Parts: sequence; structure tokens; C-alpha cells
Amino acid sequence: MPVFGHSFRKKHFPRIPDHVVPVNHGSYGLPPEDVIREYHVAFNNDVAYPDEFMRLRQQNQYRRAVESVASIVKSAPGNLALVENATTAVNSVLQSVDFKKGDVVVMPTSTYGACANTVRYLHDYRGVEFVWVELVYPLLDSEVVAKFRSVFEKHHVKLALFDAVLLMPGVVVPWVQLVNLCKEFGVLSLVDGAHALGLVPLELDAAAPDFFCSNLHKWLHVPRGCALLYVHPRFHRTIQSLPVSHSYVAPDAKLSEDKENDLLFHKFSFNGLRTFAAIATVPKALEFRKNVCGGEETIRKYCYALAQQAAEAVLKQWPDAQIIENEQKSLSTAMVSFFLPIEKYSSTFDPADAAAVEKVVQFVAEWQITKKHTFVPIAGHAGRLIGRLSAQVYNEASDYVHACGALDGALRAYFTQALKL
Amino acid sequence: MPVFGHSFRKKHFPRIPDHVVPVNHGSYGLPPEDVIREYHVAFNNDVAYPDEFMRLRQQNQYRRAVESVASIVKSAPGNLALVENATTAVNSVLQSVDFKKGDVVVMPTSTYGACANTVRYLHDYRGVEFVWVELVYPLLDSEVVAKFRSVFEKHHVKLALFDAVLLMPGVVVPWVQLVNLCKEFGVLSLVDGAHALGLVPLELDAAAPDFFCSNLHKWLHVPRGCALLYVHPRFHRTIQSLPVSHSYVAPDAKLSEDKENDLLFHKFSFNGLRTFAAIATVPKALEFRKNVCGGEETIRKYCYALAQQAAEAVLKQWPDAQIIENEQKSLSTAMVSFFLPIEKYSSTFDPADAAAVEKVVQFVAEWQITKKHTFVPIAGHAGRLIGRLSAQVYNEASDYVHACGALDGALRAYFTQALKL
Repeated sequence: MPVFGHSFRKKHFPRIPDHVVPVNHGSYGLPPEDVIREYHVAFNNDVAYPDEFMRLRQQNQYRRAVESVASIVKSAPGNLALVENATTAVNSVLQSVDFKKGDVVVMPTSTYGACANTVRYLHDYRGVEFVWVELVYPLLDSEVVAKFRSVFEKHHVKLALFDAVLLMPGVVVPWVQLVNLCKEFGVLSLVDGAHALGLVPLELDAAAPDFFCSNLHKWLHVPRGCALLYVHPRFHRTIQSLPVSHSYVAPDAKLSEDKENDLLFHKFSFNGLRTFAAIATVPKALEFRKNVCGGEETIRKYCYALAQQAAEAVLKQWPDAQIIENEQKSLSTAMVSFFLPIEKYSSTFDPADAAAVEKVVQFVAEWQITKKHTFVPIAGHAGRLIGRLSAQVYNEASDYVHACGALDGALRAYFTQALKL
Repeated sequence: MPVFGHSFRKKHFPRIPDHVVPVNHGSYGLPPEDVIREYHVAFNNDVAYPDEFMRLRQQNQYRRAVESVASIVKSAPGNLALVENATTAVNSVLQSVDFKKGDVVVMPTSTYGACANTVRYLHDYRGVEFVWVELVYPLLDSEVVAKFRSVFEKHHVKLALFDAVLLMPGVVVPWVQLVNLCKEFGVLSLVDGAHALGLVPLELDAAAPDFFCSNLHKWLHVPRGCALLYVHPRFHRTIQSLPVSHSYVAPDAKLSEDKENDLLFHKFSFNGLRTFAAIATVPKALEFRKNVCGGEETIRKYCYALAQQAAEAVLKQWPDAQIIENEQKSLSTAMVSFFLPIEKYSSTFDPADAAAVEKVVQFVAEWQITKKHTFVPIAGHAGRLIGRLSAQVYNEASDYVHACGALDGALRAYFTQALKL
């Protein structure tokens, strides 16, 4: 295993300012220097002579990126497309499903806001109904599955949307079991794996969901603007890109066998002018992970162990905090989440009050970033306040001691100020 | 007026390889060095410390970009949003209109393929009907308007989609008159001004279309990934971003007055993770156009005059070519389009055969780019073959002599090869 941590950071992530302590990889990602350089080169090659890049090279570059990521997710390249981000992927799927007024979508209460809002849009604009599965963590995998089963038994469900790894708390969802449950009930499965790729092992063709997406720009070291969309072969005909573009193919179009077999490439490789430099870096990011970091398993081993050290830092800072984990230890990865003992800061604050939570969330973000050059995101979950720490190859345990201290300082500052108001 | 042309190119567009002759600005744009540098700086600032950029700076950067472009298009900033490209803007509008099965959309036969396909998608997936307005250029503005009027009189139309400046041929469309016609008939107007911004003067609030979009990355010197969407105030409530995201606001939501007045900012400033560096460069691109180039009017004056010299080069290369212009000279801008005398190259080629046209289009693109380091795009239009030349501040008349020679060479090579097959 290479020596990860601060010396590794200095060598491979030299642009992070020395005084910054990044412990929030899960939100925005952070690419290494090799990949940043590749991005600039790709961008410059494009803008120096766009006719050549766009007409002769862009499509091949896209295909190379798809093929290089296919082996990591254990999928035939023909089942994969690259899009801008997971939200775009989820929208692309939901715009291509043949929803009729009154059709029912199921999603957990922990669904990523952007995706839940896309379902709300389908409700407000197209008459689709939705049903929540209430998830209050920590939960056993079997409990999560049972809650979905119970909803599937009560409602005639068209599609279920669920995460592979949740955002807040940052916990693993038993998505393969949920996909199987969907198959049992004849429900379409749309898995939002925004955090999954580079964080947890994936075997997409074996799991065979109907739709699965994941950002490459979170845990796979690609710059922002790159996500994967897996589409089961039975939906290659009906899936459409977002935006719909030149590459649109009507579901009932007559196609040559070649085109039929390469339909996702045809639909997704070019569907609007943008900068394609992030896609260009995919092979370089995978090379960095394999050759410099020692491979996917090695990265996971280091980051998962480090996340446990982050949990120790949490409990040292707040002995009354609760790490969000179950008896099977199936929830944590390179992200660890915890309930904050918010009652130590204020006896009147109500974490079930969404507007009050939003205020404190905004304040502690700005305070931590400007005063302590770090950022531990916090959020409400089922009437309590949670925090989340991310572990990456550039982190060491001391980062989390600093970060927990910063969050503590931010909360003290907020509630002191709040008392004065 | 600064001295535009090759010395200007050497100074402000130094990355264009010396042997390349770019005459196709209209397709992909080409940013100047100042803007490219700004892009790299913005990208680097983001990836060095994403928490700080995303949480504290991204929204302000977006607002600055919107405000700086508002004065160029003569619109209140509150009516404007920035999105990735014009196709995304058109999709965003079409996904937010309350279409019912059987509703009719009207669009001209010259509609940009991606946008026409989005209407086809609405047809195939949602039962929307569409009616073509057949446009065979050259046409007088009054003829274009009359053709739309005739269709509006025959059909009960919900929405009309039309360009401000066409792609191929690259001609101006009397879009303000068409917007007024839409108002007369109670038809929603969606103007695809992909080419408009930086190419033709715009007064959006005065014209008051329902929806108007334009790329900033074509004629406004911004790198790809940036387009404007103008939304008439009466649709601020119902327009939604693409993808739908965190920022979704239900049309009937209760809103504070502040939020109501700033709704487009709220909905569009952040709707998914991506690289925001193109948006960061908007003020720099406008500064380049104002301070280095001498302003919008000066740029237009040079480029429009140069396009006329390009037309002379066309007629010198092909005395039987026909410049696509009308008696009022209202069609050409910095783009000039022409019918190619294709019969001089082949007596059997049928420009009405779409598959045959597609083959020659692909071949001449690759041949010109690889053999002559230039690219004049060609396409079919109403059973004839057309070419298009673009004029920019880095061009001189000699560029078009080279480019026309290259296209001639490519066509000769194609038909010689075709004869042999």
C-alpha cells in the first residue's frame, strides 16, 4: 500500500492550500494533480481547433471513457452512458418512462433532494403520485427491505427510486436486495448511486437493475461534470438523453443491427455543446487509482479504516454523540455519520424545525470554512441533527480532530449569537 | 477600430495552430486567450478547495455573469437564467409547458435538429402533435411571416418554436415579427436564438417573447457550456430547470416577495454539480469584446463586412454558386451561406437524398480538416447542397480563398472516389 495521508496529499494534491483541512470529499470530490493537468490539456486541445476536436476526436474520447469505466462497474460498455451528473441521469430516466396520470412512484424519505424534487415535478406537471418509505437510521438492511416490501404490498407501484449510498446520513443502502424486491413485484428500479462509484464495489450486470447512475466526480477522482448511467438492455430503446438532442431515436425506429447494439453510444455520446474535458480525464483518473494508489481495493481499505478513526475523533469531541451504524456494521464506508448532541449547545433548538435547521446549516458552513478552513456538513434527519465526515487518500486521523473542533466552534458561535438576538 | 485579422489572431488567439484556417466560428465558437486563462484560473480555484467555492462563491459568480450579460441583451437580470447550451434551454422550456395530448406545436422545416427532435420526443412520449412551416430560402422576411400566419390560421396552435438566426443556411429570421404574430394568435413563442448573442443586436424586454435562448459560447467568446435563457415574467412560476433539482419550486408554492422577485436565480443558479468555469468567464469575455475589440457594434461591423468578402471568395471559386440572400439583404450577418453548384462535381448525385448527403457531409468534413486544416460545413437544404462561412475578428479575406479551395478539393476527392466505387 502506498503511504497515503499528508505526504501523499503534498505530492498528488498540491493545489489544496496548506491551511485547508478537507474532510468533505463526499460532497464535491477533489481530483488529483495528474487529472487536473489532463483536464487542462484536454480543454486546450479542444479550444485551439474546435472543428478538429468536435468532428474527429470527441466521439472516440467518449467511447474510451465508457470502456475504461466499464471494467470497474462490471458491466458491458453497451449498457453504459456518460452524462453530466447523477441528477441529470435520474431526470433522463424519469423523462423516458411512460408515466400515466395516477402512476405511483415510491421513494424513501432520505431521498436526495434534487431527485425527490424531480418526482414532485412529475406529480405537479404530469399527475404522477408518490409514496414515501420512511427510513429513520440506524436500520438493519433487512429492516430497509421490509419497509419497501410493506409499501409494495399496499400500493400498485410503477417505479421505485432509491439510493445505493445515502447522502445524509452517508450510509449504504441494500440496493441489490431492493432491486430484487422490485423484480419480485414487477416494479421498475431506478438506483441513485451518486456516491457509489469509487466508494463501494459494483457489479452492475450481475445486479441487473433497470437503471443505475453514479457520479464519477465524487469518489472516482474525475473533475465535476461526469456521471455514469447504466441502462438495462430492455430499456435501450426507450431511454432518451437529457436534453433530447440530435441523437434522439424514436423507440419504434427501424435500426440497423449495428446501431441497435450500440444505441446508448449513439444517444449519449454527443447531445449538446459543452466542454468535454472531464470525460477526457476518465482514463487518467483510473490510471491514478490503479498505478499510484494501488487499486480500488487498496483505496477502500485505507479510507474505510480512516473513517473509523474519524468516528473515534467524533466520540472524543462529543462523548454523547452517536455514530450511525447498525449491528451488522453494514452502514459505514469511507463516510461516517453521527447524531450530534445538539442539546449540549441549546436547550430550545428544535432539530425537527426545518427552517431552524436550515439557518444553523448555513451558518456553520460559512463559519467553519472562513474561520477554520474545513467543513463538516450537517443536516436534519428524522428530528435530529447529524454530521458527516469523509475519508480520502489525502487525509489522516488528525484532520478529523481539527474538523470536529471546528464544528464544535461553529455550533458554539451560532448558539451564542442566537442567544444574543 | 482595432486592427482585426491575422495580427489580432496572433496576439489574442495564439493557441490556434499556425497552419489552421478557422472559418467555422458559428458551429463551436473559439474563445480568446484572456478568456481561456480566466477559465483555467476559475477551474483551479474551484478544485483546490471545492467546499469554499461551492458554498461561498458559486452563487455570486453566477449572479455576476447574469448581470453582466443582461445589458448586452437589454433585459432585466431577473428575466434571465444561465444554462449549459441552447438545446438544454429549449428542453427546459418544453418540459415546463403544460402540454396536453393533441396540443399542436409549430416549427419551420429549417429547425435545428436537436430542437426538432425534442418536439418529436413530445410527440412520441406525450402525444403532442406538430406541424411544419416549410421554408425554402432565400425568402423575404414578409414571406416567412406570411407562412407562419397561414399555418396559425389553419391550426389551433399551442406553441411555436423558431430560430432567431438559422443554422444552415445561416440566415436571420424575422423573429421579433414572429413573436408579435404569436401574440396576435395567442400562441406561445419559444425563440431558439442559439446563434444570436454576439452576432445580432438583441432587445429582449422590448421584444417580450415568452421564451428566448442563446448560446454565449458561439458568438460571445465564452467557452462552451454557457447559454442564456430569457423567460417572460408570466412564466417565472412555471419554468423549471433541466435537470429538475434542489432548486425546484412548485408553480403554486407560497413564496416570500424576495424569492418571488428572484425566482429564476433561485431555480437556475445551482441545479446539479458540474464545472462552473465557463460561467466564471462571462465578465472577462464581455471585457474582451468591449475593451480589446471596441464593443459589440465594432465587432459586428468588421465581421459583417468580412462575410461579404467571404461571399466574393465563394463566387470566385464557383461562379455558378448562389449566395443565399434576399432583395432586402436581411439574411446575412457574420455568416454567409451559398448554394453549391454540385452538378459540376457529379451528374448523378441527388442532394434531395438525405443518406447520400450525409455521406458527403462526413467525408468533406474529415478531408478538409485533415488535408487542409480548415472546415466549411455543408448540408442539404430543400433538395440543394449549401455551404456556410463564418467571419470572426481573427479572420481575413484570404482565409476564405483557402477554405473555398479546400471545400472544392474535398468535393473533387469525394466524387472521384465515389466514381471508383
